[in-house]
Amino acid sequence: MAAFGLAGAQAGDARAGRQKLTTCQGCHGLDGLSKNPEAPNLAGQIENYLVRSLAAYKSGERKNESMNIVAKDLSDEDIADVAAYYASIQVDVLPP
Amino acid sequence: MAAFGLAGAQAGDARAGRQKLTTCQGCHGLDGLSKNPEAPNLAGQIENYLVRSLAAYKSGERKNESMNIVAKDLSDEDIADVAAYYASIQVDVLPP
Repeated sequence: MAAFGLAGAQAGDARAGRQKLTTCQGCHGLDGLSKNPEAPNLAGQIENYLVRSLAAYKSGERKNESMNIVAKDLSDEDIADVAAYYASIQVDVLPP
Repeated sequence: MAAFGLAGAQAGDARAGRQKLTTCQGCHGLDGLSKNPEAPNLAGQIENYLVRSLAAYKSGERKNESMNIVAKDLSDEDIADVAAYYASIQVDVLPP
Protein backbone atom coordinates (compact mmCIF):
# COMPACT_ATOMS: atom_id res chain seq x y z
CA MET A 1 0.00 0.00 0.00
CA ALA A 2 2.81 2.42 0.83
CA ALA A 3 4.02 2.25 -2.75
CA PHE A 4 0.95 3.93 -4.29
CA GLY A 5 2.14 6.87 -6.33
CA LEU A 6 5.63 6.79 -4.89
CA ALA A 7 8.14 5.33 -7.32
CA GLY A 8 10.53 3.09 -5.46
CA ALA A 9 8.80 3.41 -2.11
CA GLN A 10 9.02 0.30 0.02
CA ALA A 11 6.18 -1.42 1.83
CA GLY A 12 6.20 -0.51 5.50
CA ASP A 13 6.44 -2.89 8.44
CA ALA A 14 3.74 -2.05 10.99
CA ARG A 15 5.46 -3.98 13.80
CA ALA A 16 8.72 -2.12 13.21
CA GLY A 17 6.71 1.11 13.05
CA ARG A 18 5.23 0.38 16.47
CA GLN A 19 8.78 0.49 17.89
CA LYS A 20 9.45 3.89 16.33
CA LEU A 21 6.56 5.86 17.82
CA THR A 22 8.49 7.46 20.68
CA THR A 23 8.15 10.92 19.16
CA CYS A 24 4.83 10.45 17.35
CA GLN A 25 2.77 9.19 20.26
CA GLY A 26 2.94 12.38 22.32
CA CYS A 27 0.62 14.10 19.85
CA HIS A 28 -0.93 11.26 17.82
CA GLY A 29 -1.11 8.51 20.44
CA LEU A 30 -0.18 4.85 20.25
CA ASP A 31 -3.84 4.33 19.37
CA GLY A 32 -3.70 6.95 16.59
CA LEU A 33 -6.09 9.29 18.40
CA SER A 34 -4.99 12.89 18.73
CA LYS A 35 -3.73 13.99 22.13
CA ASN A 36 -3.88 17.71 21.36
CA PRO A 37 -6.20 19.88 19.27
CA GLU A 38 -3.46 20.76 16.78
CA ALA A 39 -2.71 17.16 15.83
CA PRO A 40 -4.89 14.98 13.58
CA ASN A 41 -6.05 11.47 14.37
CA LEU A 42 -4.01 8.94 12.41
CA ALA A 43 -5.76 5.69 13.38
CA GLY A 44 -6.62 3.71 10.26
CA GLN A 45 -5.49 6.54 8.00
CA ILE A 46 -4.74 5.73 4.35
CA GLU A 47 -1.14 4.43 4.30
CA ASN A 48 -0.18 6.20 1.09
CA TYR A 49 -1.49 9.49 2.45
CA LEU A 50 0.62 9.10 5.61
CA VAL A 51 3.76 8.32 3.58
CA ARG A 52 3.21 11.32 1.32
CA SER A 53 2.49 13.60 4.28
CA LEU A 54 5.64 12.59 6.15
CA ALA A 55 7.74 12.94 2.99
CA ALA A 56 6.28 16.42 2.38
CA TYR A 57 7.00 17.44 5.99
CA LYS A 58 10.54 16.10 5.65
CA SER A 59 11.22 18.01 2.43
CA GLY A 60 9.56 21.14 3.82
CA GLU A 61 6.98 21.17 1.01
CA ARG A 62 4.31 20.90 3.69
CA LYS A 63 4.73 23.31 6.59
CA ASN A 64 4.19 22.59 10.25
CA GLU A 65 6.64 23.67 12.91
CA SER A 66 6.54 20.41 14.88
CA MET A 67 6.30 18.03 11.95
CA ASN A 68 9.09 19.67 9.95
CA ILE A 69 11.43 19.10 12.92
CA VAL A 70 10.25 15.53 13.58
CA ALA A 71 10.20 14.34 9.97
CA LYS A 72 13.68 15.71 9.19
CA ASP A 73 15.24 12.78 11.07
CA LEU A 74 13.09 10.02 9.56
CA SER A 75 14.54 7.69 6.92
CA ASP A 76 12.34 6.44 4.07
CA GLU A 77 12.11 3.16 5.95
CA ASP A 78 11.04 4.90 9.17
CA ILE A 79 8.35 6.77 7.23
CA ALA A 80 7.08 3.57 5.60
CA ASP A 81 7.05 1.70 8.93
CA VAL A 82 5.31 4.40 10.95
CA ALA A 83 2.74 4.89 8.16
CA ALA A 84 2.13 1.13 8.06
CA TYR A 85 1.58 1.06 11.82
CA TYR A 86 -0.98 3.85 11.95
CA ALA A 87 -2.73 2.55 8.83
CA SER A 88 -2.99 -0.90 10.44
CA ILE A 89 -5.15 0.35 13.33
CA GLN A 90 -8.68 -0.84 12.73
CA VAL A 91 -11.39 1.78 12.82
CA ASP A 92 -15.16 1.37 12.94
CA VAL A 93 -17.17 4.33 11.75
CA LEU A 94 -20.66 5.26 12.88
CA PRO A 95 -22.01 7.96 10.53
CA PRO A 96 -24.38 10.45 12.17
CA MET B 1 -14.32 23.28 18.66
CA ALA B 2 -13.67 24.92 15.29
CA ALA B 3 -12.41 28.02 17.07
CA PHE B 4 -9.29 26.40 18.57
CA GLY B 5 -6.34 28.51 17.58
CA LEU B 6 -8.25 30.43 14.92
CA ALA B 7 -9.07 33.94 16.06
CA GLY B 8 -12.58 34.82 15.01
CA ALA B 9 -13.39 31.42 13.56
CA GLN B 10 -17.02 30.43 13.93
CA ALA B 11 -18.30 27.13 15.26
CA GLY B 12 -19.42 24.92 12.42
CA ASP B 13 -22.85 23.40 11.91
CA ALA B 14 -22.53 19.68 11.20
CA ARG B 15 -26.06 19.42 9.76
CA ALA B 16 -25.41 22.28 7.38
CA GLY B 17 -22.07 20.67 6.51
CA ARG B 18 -23.85 17.44 5.58
CA GLN B 19 -25.71 19.40 2.88
CA LYS B 20 -22.46 20.76 1.42
CA LEU B 21 -20.66 17.49 0.74
CA THR B 22 -21.47 17.23 -2.96
CA THR B 23 -17.85 17.77 -3.95
CA CYS B 24 -16.16 16.24 -0.90
CA GLN B 25 -17.93 12.88 -0.90
CA GLY B 26 -16.46 11.65 -4.19
CA CYS B 27 -13.06 11.26 -2.54
CA HIS B 28 -13.77 11.37 1.21
CA GLY B 29 -17.20 9.71 1.34
CA LEU B 30 -20.32 10.70 3.21
CA ASP B 31 -19.02 8.36 5.91
CA GLY B 32 -15.61 10.05 5.96
CA LEU B 33 -13.82 6.98 4.63
CA SER B 34 -11.52 7.52 1.68
CA LYS B 35 -12.78 6.41 -1.73
CA ASN B 36 -9.39 6.64 -3.42
CA PRO B 37 -5.80 5.99 -2.30
CA GLU B 38 -4.81 9.65 -2.66
CA ALA B 39 -7.47 10.95 -0.26
CA PRO B 40 -7.31 10.66 3.55
CA ASN B 41 -10.10 9.38 5.77
CA LEU B 42 -11.84 12.29 7.49
CA ALA B 43 -14.29 10.41 9.75
CA GLY B 44 -14.01 11.71 13.30
CA GLN B 45 -11.02 13.86 12.42
CA ILE B 46 -10.11 16.71 14.79
CA GLU B 47 -12.34 19.64 13.81
CA ASN B 48 -9.67 22.29 14.25
CA TYR B 49 -7.29 20.30 12.06
CA LEU B 50 -9.91 20.08 9.30
CA VAL B 51 -10.60 23.82 9.46
CA ARG B 52 -6.89 24.66 9.29
CA SER B 53 -6.31 22.20 6.44
CA LEU B 54 -9.14 23.61 4.33
CA ALA B 55 -8.02 27.18 5.02
CA ALA B 56 -4.46 26.27 4.01
CA TYR B 57 -5.70 24.61 0.80
CA LYS B 58 -7.82 27.67 0.06
CA SER B 59 -4.92 30.10 0.56
CA GLY B 60 -2.56 27.84 -1.38
CA GLU B 61 -0.24 27.49 1.63
CA ARG B 62 -0.87 23.74 1.47
CA LYS B 63 -0.55 22.23 -1.99
CA ASN B 64 -2.77 19.61 -3.54
CA GLU B 65 -4.08 19.89 -7.06
CA SER B 66 -7.62 18.74 -6.26
CA MET B 67 -7.96 20.41 -2.88
CA ASN B 68 -6.62 23.78 -4.04
CA ILE B 69 -9.38 23.86 -6.68
CA VAL B 70 -12.13 22.65 -4.34
CA ALA B 71 -11.25 24.85 -1.36
CA LYS B 72 -10.98 28.03 -3.45
CA ASP B 73 -14.78 28.24 -3.62
CA LEU B 74 -15.47 27.54 0.08
CA SER B 75 -16.50 30.37 2.40
CA ASP B 76 -15.30 30.41 6.00
CA GLU B 77 -18.79 29.21 6.95
CA ASP B 78 -18.63 26.33 4.44
CA ILE B 79 -15.25 25.31 5.85
CA ALA B 80 -16.53 25.40 9.43
CA ASP B 81 -19.66 23.42 8.52
CA VAL B 82 -17.93 20.72 6.51
CA ALA B 83 -15.26 20.35 9.21
CA ALA B 84 -17.98 20.06 11.87
CA TYR B 85 -19.73 17.35 9.85
CA TYR B 86 -16.69 15.14 9.35
CA ALA B 87 -15.56 15.68 12.95
CA SER B 88 -19.01 14.62 14.18
CA ILE B 89 -18.72 11.12 12.72
CA GLN B 90 -18.13 8.72 15.59
CA VAL B 91 -15.16 6.43 15.29
CA ASP B 92 -14.23 3.39 17.35
CA VAL B 93 -10.59 2.40 17.29
CA LEU B 94 -9.18 -1.10 17.77
CA PRO B 95 -5.42 -0.83 18.24
CA PRO B 96 -3.42 -3.78 16.87
